[in-house]
Amino acid sequence: MTAPRLNELTATEVAHRVARGETTARAVIEACLEQVARREAEVMAFAHLDAEGARAAADATDRHGATMPLAGAGLGVKDIIDTADMPTGYGSPIHQGHQPSADAACVALARKAGATVLGKTVTTEFANIHPGPTRNPHDATRTPGGSSSGSAAAVAAMMLPLALGTQTTSSTIRPASFCGVVGFVPSLGEIPLSGVRTAAQSFDRIGVFARSVADIASAFDALRGLAASAAPEPFAPRIGYCRGHLAERMDAGTAERMDALALHLSRAGANVSDVSVGPTFVGLSQTHQAISSFEFLRNFTYEIEHHWSRISTTLREGRIAHGRACSHAEYRAALQQAIEARAAIGALFEGRDVLLAAAAAGEAPQGSATGDFQFCAIWTVLGLPALSLPLMSGPHGLPIGAQLLARPGDEAKLLAAAEWMMRHGIG
Amino acid sequence: MTAPRLNELTATEVAHRVARGETTARAVIEACLEQVARREAEVMAFAHLDAEGARAAADATDRHGATMPLAGAGLGVKDIIDTADMPTGYGSPIHQGHQPSADAACVALARKAGATVLGKTVTTEFANIHPGPTRNPHDATRTPGGSSSGSAAAVAAMMLPLALGTQTTSSTIRPASFCGVVGFVPSLGEIPLSGVRTAAQSFDRIGVFARSVADIASAFDALRGLAASAAPEPFAPRIGYCRGHLAERMDAGTAERMDALALHLSRAGANVSDVSVGPTFVGLSQTHQAISSFEFLRNFTYEIEHHWSRISTTLREGRIAHGRACSHAEYRAALQQAIEARAAIGALFEGRDVLLAAAAAGEAPQGSATGDFQFCAIWTVLGLPALSLPLMSGPHGLPIGAQLLARPGDEAKLLAAAEWMMRHGIG
Repeated sequence: MTAPRLNELTATEVAHRVARGETTARAVIEACLEQVARREAEVMAFAHLDAEGARAAADATDRHGATMPLAGAGLGVKDIIDTADMPTGYGSPIHQGHQPSADAACVALARKAGATVLGKTVTTEFANIHPGPTRNPHDATRTPGGSSSGSAAAVAAMMLPLALGTQTTSSTIRPASFCGVVGFVPSLGEIPLSGVRTAAQSFDRIGVFARSVADIASAFDALRGLAASAAPEPFAPRIGYCRGHLAERMDAGTAERMDALALHLSRAGANVSDVSVGPTFVGLSQTHQAISSFEFLRNFTYEIEHHWSRISTTLREGRIAHGRACSHAEYRAALQQAIEARAAIGALFEGRDVLLAAAAAGEAPQGSATGDFQFCAIWTVLGLPALSLPLMSGPHGLPIGAQLLARPGDEAKLLAAAEWMMRHGIG
Repeated sequence: MTAPRLNELTATEVAHRVARGETTARAVIEACLEQVARREAEVMAFAHLDAEGARAAADATDRHGATMPLAGAGLGVKDIIDTADMPTGYGSPIHQGHQPSADAACVALARKAGATVLGKTVTTEFANIHPGPTRNPHDATRTPGGSSSGSAAAVAAMMLPLALGTQTTSSTIRPASFCGVVGFVPSLGEIPLSGVRTAAQSFDRIGVFARSVADIASAFDALRGLAASAAPEPFAPRIGYCRGHLAERMDAGTAERMDALALHLSRAGANVSDVSVGPTFVGLSQTHQAISSFEFLRNFTYEIEHHWSRISTTLREGRIAHGRACSHAEYRAALQQAIEARAAIGALFEGRDVLLAAAAAGEAPQGSATGDFQFCAIWTVLGLPALSLPLMSGPHGLPIGAQLLARPGDEAKLLAAAEWMMRHGIG
C-alpha cells in the first residue's frame, strides 16, 4: 500500500503533519494544485483559481502559523460567499467579475485558523437550481448536485480537503451525497452568514465539505471563532430511523440500501428504532417552498428589476414565480407553521440521539439537473444540524449518502455519533 | 401662512401630488437638492451625494411611474447599506470607495416603489458608536445621535422626506429622538437585510426615518415588497407606560416630561396604566451586550485581522473587547435568556395595545459622542417593533422622542396608535 499523496490527506492530518514539521503548508498546497491540474479540465469545480495567492498564503502559514488548527489545509469557497482578494460572481453573469471589499466572516475565520483558500468553487445561479459547468468527479456524465456543486466536487476529486458551501434547502447535503464526501450544516445561526449572498434568510446556512468527520468538527470550531476543542469521542448512538416518508421519491433500491444500513448499524451496537415522520412534518415541504420563495423574490429585487434578461428561465419560472404566487398572509402562516413544527421536534427525538434518513433519491442522476431537493426540505424548516455520510453505494457503484440529524444545538453529539458510524459503516 | 416648499412635504404628500400631476418628481428632487445646498455644509449628513443620478431617476418616475406609492420621494440610504450605483463605505476608511454590484433588497424595493435615492447618508463606523461628521440640524454643537446619524439629520433638515437606517441597539430610535423626526424599526426579520453589512445578526433591523407616521406606513409596505395598504386608522390606544426603569440614566426633567405626556394622552382619551419593567427585563441590557459583542467580533474578523490599525480605538476597546471577553457558553446562555424573555412578553402587554417608554435620556447631548443607547437595549432583545415620535421638547427647546412599542407582528396597531398620538400629542 502506497502512502497517500499530500492532497489526499484530510485537513486534520495535514495540520498535524505541518505542526510536527513533517511537511509544509506550501508542499501540501502544491500537491493540491497538481491535483487541480490533473482533474479540473474534466470536473470544472472552480469559478476562479488563485494559485499564486494560495502559494503566498501557504508560505505565510509556514513562516508564522504552523500550529494553527487548519494549518496547510486547502480550502474551496463557494462563489456565493464574498472574498476580499478574489472575484465573487454568485453564479450569475450579472455579477461576473464583482470584487467584494471584505472576506465573508466564515472565510476570514477559516483563514485565521490557518486554512489556505485555493479558489472560488462553482455555485448554481444564486445558489438556486440552474446548474453551473461542474461535473461529478466519479462519472462526468452525472451532476455533482447543487447548489454547492464545485465545493463537493473539489473535495471528492482530492483537489482540496475542505470546502465551504451554503444550504437553503439541500444545497450541501445533496451534493455531498452525490459526490461521496462528508457534508455538514450546523443549527440555524451557528456559523455567521455575514458576507454571504442571502437567498432566504429564514433557512440560509453555511455548509462544510470534508473527507472525515474530524475535519468537520475542526472546521466547525474555526468557523464559530472558537478555540479547537477535542475531537468528538465516538459512541454507539440511539438512532431514530426515518423510514419510508419519502419512499415514493426514491430511486429503486435506495430504500432497501437504507434498511440494510440501519440493520448493519444495529448489529454493530447502535439502538435503532423506526420513527414515523407524519403528515405534519411531511407537509413542511410546502412550508419550505412558501417561505423560501417569498424571501428569495424580495432578496433579488435588484436583479429582477435591472437584469431580468440575464436571469435563467429556470429561476424565473421556479423560485421567482413561486415567490410571486405567495401572498404575505401565506408567508406569515408558513412562518407560524415552522415555529409550531420546531416546537414539536421533541417527539421525533424521544429516547434518541440522532435521526437517520435518506440524503437524496439515490445516486447522482445523469445530466446537468442537480437532483431532487425534497430529502432535506423538512429538516431545513426544522433547523436541525445535519450530516451526509458516504456510507452507501448504488447500482452503478456511485456513492449515496446517509443523512444524520440531531436536535438544534446538539452538534457535538451529531459529530460523535457520525464518527462512530463512519468507523462501523458498511464500508 | 405660506405653502410648504416641495422639499418640506412628506413622502405621502409628494406621491399624491405627483400622481395627480400637480407637481413632478423632478421638481421635488430639485427642491430637495436646493435644500441640500443650503444645509449640507453645516449638517454634513451625506457620505455621498448623487445629484445627477437622482435627477435621472426622478425623470424616469415622471415618464413611467407617477402613480407608484413613493413616486417622487427623495430617499437617503445609510452608508452601511449597499447600492449598485454609489460607493458604500460602511463608515470606515477600510472600505472607502467600495462599489457593491447590487442594491440591497431594501434599496431595490424602495426604488421599485418609486423612491429616488439622493445619496448615501453618514453612518458611524460599522454602525457602532465611533461618530461620523454629521451634526444635529437643530443645533450644530450637538450630536444627531447614531448610528444612523446622516439619515435622521437629513430628514430633520428637510433635505429629503424619507431615509433608511439600521438598528442593532438603538441606532434608529435614538437619532430620531435627537433630531425630532419619526423613527421606526419593524419586528425582527420583517424587512429583508440582504445587502446590509451585518453587525449582529440576532438584532440587526432596517430602520426608517420620516416626518409622518403615514410615510412610515407607506415605506413599510414598500420595503416588504407588498402592495400599498390603506393608511393606518388612528385610534386611542390602551397604553402601558413604562415608568422609571431607567430613571437614573435620564437627564433632569425627562421623567417629568414623560409623565406629562402620559397624562396628556390619558386626558385625550387613551387608557394609560403603569407597567413595571422588572429586573428580568432590565437585565436584558447585559444579554444584549453579550450577544451583540460575540456576534460583532466574528462578523468583523476580516477587518480585525487585516486592518487593525484602521479601526477606531472606540471600537477596539468597546464592542471588540467585549466580544473577546464573552465566551461561547456565555453567548449561548444569553441567547437562551433572550428566548425566555421573548416568551414572557405577554405579561408586559396584558390588556394593552402598546407600550410607552423614553426613547433617549433627553435632548441630544453636546459634542460628537452619539448618546446613551440603553433606552432601547431591552426592547431590541425582545424584538419589538418600535417608533420614536417627536412629541416632547427639552430645556433648550430641542426635540425629545417618545418611544412606542408593540408586540412582534403588531406593526399595524403600532402605526395606528402612533397616528392617534401624533394628532393628540402635546404639540
